[in-house]
Amino acid sequence: NYQNYKEDKRVMPELDFDKTGGLIPAIAQDAETGEVLMLAYMNQEAFEETLACGNAVYYSRSRKKLWKKGETSGHVQKVREIRVDCDNDTVLLKVTQVGGAACHKGYKSCFYKVVENNEFKIVEKRVFDPKKVYK
Amino acid sequence: NYQNYKEDKRVMPELDFDKTGGLIPAIAQDAETGEVLMLAYMNQEAFEETLACGNAVYYSRSRKKLWKKGETSGHVQKVREIRVDCDNDTVLLKVTQVGGAACHKGYKSCFYKVVENNEFKIVEKRVFDPKKVYK
Repeated sequence: NYQNYKEDKRVMPELDFDKTGGLIPAIAQDAETGEVLMLAYMNQEAFEETLACGNAVYYSRSRKKLWKKGETSGHVQKVREIRVDCDNDTVLLKVTQVGGAACHKGYKSCFYKVVENNEFKIVEKRVFDPKKVYK
Repeated sequence: NYQNYKEDKRVMPELDFDKTGGLIPAIAQDAETGEVLMLAYMNQEAFEETLACGNAVYYSRSRKKLWKKGETSGHVQKVREIRVDCDNDTVLLKVTQVGGAACHKGYKSCFYKVVENNEFKIVEKRVFDPKKVYK
């Protein structure tokens, strides 16, 4: 677990958090379908927590603290694989999204809008009604 | 084309470039396979150029200028669909990658490394030898 991990002081893969002021983008992708679910940000601690606990942990830029996705709703993202890019400054998580929806607006993916004729057009259906889930 | 587009002065979909100092992340995903190819950044101009020309145009943070991906190599990304996320601060491009490789290191995807046992492990094969392509 995380405590053991920290005590082990094993060498972490080196991600380049410095280039972007401590936060790097993390893409969550459905491990089964390949659908891109969302993009959030990680600081070093969020990345280490994700490795340690096996569920996606991000850093919330608005709340300025660690964001254990799904902690209250139970809609966690179980991490199946973690990839990093050539520059070591972006993370790709292949996940299983518990509850079926990654987006707080009730859609499976946050990318439910297509740009068409200079407009945003919603092309997906809601999995849940956010008014009923977030009370 | 872009010139017509600008002259039309049509209303652009509103992306939130301000939140992140003018640059938002753009994910490029293979339109056929769903593979995530890379993540780069766009400013307003890069987004508009992408819409106008139909190939992915990013903003290079290192070179501090527009980056028409594949302009010299011919390995452009033909944009099949553009999606935006719930917060209007991330773009997802579904693309056809000409030349078969999005990564300057010669891999199809920039995400060719998996994090395993606290190490980075290369799990993909090169499509081209970068030493031969970038002379």
